[in-house]
Amino acid sequence: MTEFIPPATRWIDLPSPFAMKRGGTLHGARVAYETWGELDAARSNAILIVTGLSPDAHAASCAADPTPGWWEAMLGPGKAIDTGRWFVVCVNSLGSCKGSTGPASLNAATGCAYRLDFPDVSIEDIADAAAHVVRALGIERLACVIGNSMGGMTALALLQRHPGLARSHVNVSGSARALPFSIAVRSLQREAIRLDPNWNNGGYDEATYPESGMRIARKLGVITYRSALEWDGRFGRVRLDSDQLDEDPFGLEFQVESYLEGHARRFVRRYDPNSYLYLSRSMDWFDLSEGNGGDVLAALAGLRVERALAIGARTDILFPVEQQEEIAEGLALGGADAQFLGLESPQGHDAFLVDFDRFGPAIRGFLDAL
Amino acid sequence: MTEFIPPATRWIDLPSPFAMKRGGTLHGARVAYETWGELDAARSNAILIVTGLSPDAHAASCAADPTPGWWEAMLGPGKAIDTGRWFVVCVNSLGSCKGSTGPASLNAATGCAYRLDFPDVSIEDIADAAAHVVRALGIERLACVIGNSMGGMTALALLQRHPGLARSHVNVSGSARALPFSIAVRSLQREAIRLDPNWNNGGYDEATYPESGMRIARKLGVITYRSALEWDGRFGRVRLDSDQLDEDPFGLEFQVESYLEGHARRFVRRYDPNSYLYLSRSMDWFDLSEGNGGDVLAALAGLRVERALAIGARTDILFPVEQQEEIAEGLALGGADAQFLGLESPQGHDAFLVDFDRFGPAIRGFLDAL
Repeated sequence: MTEFIPPATRWIDLPSPFAMKRGGTLHGARVAYETWGELDAARSNAILIVTGLSPDAHAASCAADPTPGWWEAMLGPGKAIDTGRWFVVCVNSLGSCKGSTGPASLNAATGCAYRLDFPDVSIEDIADAAAHVVRALGIERLACVIGNSMGGMTALALLQRHPGLARSHVNVSGSARALPFSIAVRSLQREAIRLDPNWNNGGYDEATYPESGMRIARKLGVITYRSALEWDGRFGRVRLDSDQLDEDPFGLEFQVESYLEGHARRFVRRYDPNSYLYLSRSMDWFDLSEGNGGDVLAALAGLRVERALAIGARTDILFPVEQQEEIAEGLALGGADAQFLGLESPQGHDAFLVDFDRFGPAIRGFLDAL
Repeated sequence: MTEFIPPATRWIDLPSPFAMKRGGTLHGARVAYETWGELDAARSNAILIVTGLSPDAHAASCAADPTPGWWEAMLGPGKAIDTGRWFVVCVNSLGSCKGSTGPASLNAATGCAYRLDFPDVSIEDIADAAAHVVRALGIERLACVIGNSMGGMTALALLQRHPGLARSHVNVSGSARALPFSIAVRSLQREAIRLDPNWNNGGYDEATYPESGMRIARKLGVITYRSALEWDGRFGRVRLDSDQLDEDPFGLEFQVESYLEGHARRFVRRYDPNSYLYLSRSMDWFDLSEGNGGDVLAALAGLRVERALAIGARTDILFPVEQQEEIAEGLALGGADAQFLGLESPQGHDAFLVDFDRFGPAIRGFLDAL
């Protein structure tokens, strides 16, 4: 598959072999990352960003790549995450197809892509790989680890498995464990891909990319990433102009359908379906309280951070704000100065990617006070 | 396709030709129905039930068919809809595959099934067909029309197009028009069916039934019919026993996945995919305020009923309670004694099919007071 790796990407090799939590090892694996700002002499001003399922490491533009990043409005000189003050590292998740080693990468042992021979990827593996990048950059202690969505899980796993690596934490629309509604949605997304004959047990190539399955998976994603409230105001019952109408029976007719279609078109053939399956499942498996007999608050209380902010949108149906509230509550039980903020953003789970008027000041306020 | 028509089904012929709202006519079409109780001498005790997308007319058991119906707990002697007092008629929607004429029916003009030659089906057509059944049974005025889900739309269309046909109305988890979140969900369900190569532009047969598409459509339905809250308590993160585990990579692992799987298995090959497409789209099109310039309250205020109850579950994400609240508000504006009840059922849109402790007394109370 054609790779879409941003030009400013850099790489750090993981230890080889790199042992995976659920079994199996990777040899010669590496993690893609980008950085912004300057690490100070005391190496005390570093922030790590861990991402959701689909983003690459290009969170914002930089000299080597002026293309706007996926968090462009949040990250840069004078912005909420002020790169005039902070040295910011964003890593691409292990298992992704955006530069880090994943199922689409070449397996040196066979000379072929791993595909389904890639070992199970867990959130904990993604966290371990990110922690390795941090240390390889000479950072002993992060000022903050920021995790969005799946990255909110990754950040919590990092804090659990690498105590002391971060002084503070911002959890954005994340959760300490997957709950059944989100598991059901992801399971169905994976099933849509697996049922596409082109998926072929992971054996597709460019000519046989499982486009139908990926379309369904992406559209279902977008339906659960936004909110009914936002769409009522944004689309209502507005129909497409007659020249945009689809000739197919049962084709596009309403603006909301065209919006979903646009999202699908921008996603398929730009993301590796096997990577999607691996990372999607890693979220279902994630449960910070695995070692605490299912007691999430106890697991969170066991994390050592000085300050924390858990934040989300009240319209989020995939990672509902109760999950961010739980994170703040558990971290506070462990002695952290932890705050929960449930924002009135109408955009649902995706609000952190679009509602900068609400998310920006909240994150800026937290970081400024560090 | 094998038809699954309940044995107590009866039929009433529609006028031939039967003109459809969006164009086209049906010749020799008929509507399937069942009845319970006895029509009184004054013909004043009749209740009509119009249904959601998938149910047949077998709402409850009867002498000719002791199999429990889809609303068995609600309908029968002494139950909330007391067949000791009421003569109850349940019709199968025009366009369905459960007895009424639909895309899977034989087109007498060609000797073949209609498939995509079936004319567009609108909620208004379904309402007109139901109204014809009522009159053909000798009923000039219903004591009440009860509509659930899609049937809530059908009932409103019936009141609008057949003024005076019903004295009162119970709208259960219905809406006066489709909003973009539900349109998006249904559009994606239809796309999953259409993308299944077996669908073949509607030309499948038993051997090539588009099972993958219907599985996805049904599972997505179930995800939006229930609620995250219910599933948190019901499934949590409980995994399947090892002997239930799927051998497939990315196969079933959590109880919630197995629950969805069960729903899919009980649905595919028991519902005609073309019928599904037609009825699904009829809901997207429905807007009671079409003739009122989009003013829903005005459209509702134009309906003539004496009493009404609009009821739903606060956890419903597909037909949110605000839509039932709007129905009650609009009917009250028109002079009806209309009440809205938002119930605390955790089961989402499907609550009316399972939470009889809440829905039963509400509907019983309304009908008892008629």
